Amino acid sequence: MQKLAIGIDIGGTNVSFGIVNQTGNVFYKESFPIKDFITIHDFIDYLSIKINSSYKELDIEFKIKGIGIGAPNGNYYSGTIEYAPNLAWKGIIPLASLLNKKIGIPVFLTNDANAAAMGEMIYGNAKGLKDFIMITLGTGLGSGFVANGELILGHDGFAGELGHAIFDPNGRMCGCGRKGCLEQYASAPGIVKTVIEFLANSTESSILRDIPSEELSSEQIYNAATKKDSIALKAFDYTGYVLGIMLANAVSVTSPEVIFLFGGLANAGELIFKPTKKYMEENILDVYQNKIELKSSALPENDAAILGAAALVWSEKNQNH
Amino acid sequence: MQKLAIGIDIGGTNVSFGIVNQTGNVFYKESFPIKDFITIHDFIDYLSIKINSSYKELDIEFKIKGIGIGAPNGNYYSGTIEYAPNLAWKGIIPLASLLNKKIGIPVFLTNDANAAAMGEMIYGNAKGLKDFIMITLGTGLGSGFVANGELILGHDGFAGELGHAIFDPNGRMCGCGRKGCLEQYASAPGIVKTVIEFLANSTESSILRDIPSEELSSEQIYNAATKKDSIALKAFDYTGYVLGIMLANAVSVTSPEVIFLFGGLANAGELIFKPTKKYMEENILDVYQNKIELKSSALPENDAAILGAAALVWSEKNQNH
Repeated sequence: MQKLAIGIDIGGTNVSFGIVNQTGNVFYKESFPIKDFITIHDFIDYLSIKINSSYKELDIEFKIKGIGIGAPNGNYYSGTIEYAPNLAWKGIIPLASLLNKKIGIPVFLTNDANAAAMGEMIYGNAKGLKDFIMITLGTGLGSGFVANGELILGHDGFAGELGHAIFDPNGRMCGCGRKGCLEQYASAPGIVKTVIEFLANSTESSILRDIPSEELSSEQIYNAATKKDSIALKAFDYTGYVLGIMLANAVSVTSPEVIFLFGGLANAGELIFKPTKKYMEENILDVYQNKIELKSSALPENDAAILGAAALVWSEKNQNH
Repeated sequence: MQKLAIGIDIGGTNVSFGIVNQTGNVFYKESFPIKDFITIHDFIDYLSIKINSSYKELDIEFKIKGIGIGAPNGNYYSGTIEYAPNLAWKGIIPLASLLNKKIGIPVFLTNDANAAAMGEMIYGNAKGLKDFIMITLGTGLGSGFVANGELILGHDGFAGELGHAIFDPNGRMCGCGRKGCLEQYASAPGIVKTVIEFLANSTESSILRDIPSEELSSEQIYNAATKKDSIALKAFDYTGYVLGIMLANAVSVTSPEVIFLFGGLANAGELIFKPTKKYMEENILDVYQNKIELKSSALPENDAAILGAAALVWSEKNQNH
């Protein structure tokens, strides 16, 4: 009999769920839009119907060990989503306990970046690592820290918000209300802002000048950089500079063996890895130098969120529950 | 029969050791200068004679469970002191194994700030806390991070160097070779540098102008601040500003319940606690606000280093050895 876990990824637009085993095989997966569910109860009802009917698609003998959920502002300790700005459900949503009551199996919940760290530890390039950092570079910057083999959750369950560590107290305005947060520089919208600034402050020619700034995307900057566009290359270098310094500071806290970069901007490969590594090395203490690997995730991007959420079920901590 | 631990604090000038029980009673203590010992072997010989003769001073039945050592650049995993700039012994010194061979009881070693964190956890204000940060403000800035109830050591044993996290990449030159490290601002010499800058950049009257800058000390700045000297007050405010921002960034990694400030500069009380708290709160994400206590250590300053070192012996991890 196969032991299986359900991984659920809750995003601002879609919910994905999948049924996976302990080695990362995805036996079933499905996505549906989240905006149709005005109340959390409508959502729970629909999700549990979907999960129950998915069992019929599995032509193996199986036992579901638990459900893992990755969600914005997810709190592991309480199993709640708290004041998530991108979701329709406001306030504190006790998602884990509601789903557990409906389906009757253990439910674990954490935020997206923590789930990505767990996914890497169970299924990916972080197997056997006791100290590493996961950085997700997408529309924001998410982070998950593992130390002594365990996810750092913090006393309140909200540890790992490096995206809102402050790079420059007088820097770019952030949606969180503060100035100069890391994710205003090192994220897909961050590099777009950098290019807009660089174009405004120079007369250098660039193929990016032909694109109206409201249409400019990180993909276009990537394409320009592959064509050796100087402004695009400088923007990647600056992004790596900011990220490198802030990673250096995070290293001074947890001294990890590996830092993983994951998500949209990380797909730019050496364009982002090379300057990030360079500036990180320049800004860390001698004792840390040339010890820390900067790596990409081993998880297939399409399944990463589901695998990360499912990984919560297999973590040692939760096996003991 | 009393179970006892030996705590040894190795500093640049003196070595202190003490014999303490699990509740923090100090049964014996002694200090001697470190500079007389040119080789580590001379030091080990002398230290073991001192320890053996100290047993005669105890008029109780006892069993020594182990030795804990706090030392600059101490590595917990390997029990070594590695390239400590302030000690005469160069390179990598296997202090724990040398002392263990000589005395035949378990020896644990870590750096000073990690030892202070352990001391607070076993004997002080951090009893029962699973997530906290210890900051030692002396001639430098040391830090020890506890998450999930365990000291974060990092993959190499060198985690917790917040003093060398970079506040300003174009800032003050640091002894480590980089610029703008936190300890260039938040430490006893740091606040002196701040006052020298403030005096140079203003014409404001200050009792600190009467002191030649090479004689200026953090104590004199403290005394001036208690007399409402404006430059001294501004210097404490600025020190709290820098420390507050960098603590905010550390909070975004580990989300602690309490941050302890310990050592010389922390004795300035509200002069340093108030601005640090204010700027930390201003620079953390909403989700962390008004949740984190900034506290002083409960350990008596004279015994803190010995208690911190001895605490290593009582930590759960080492009890299982």
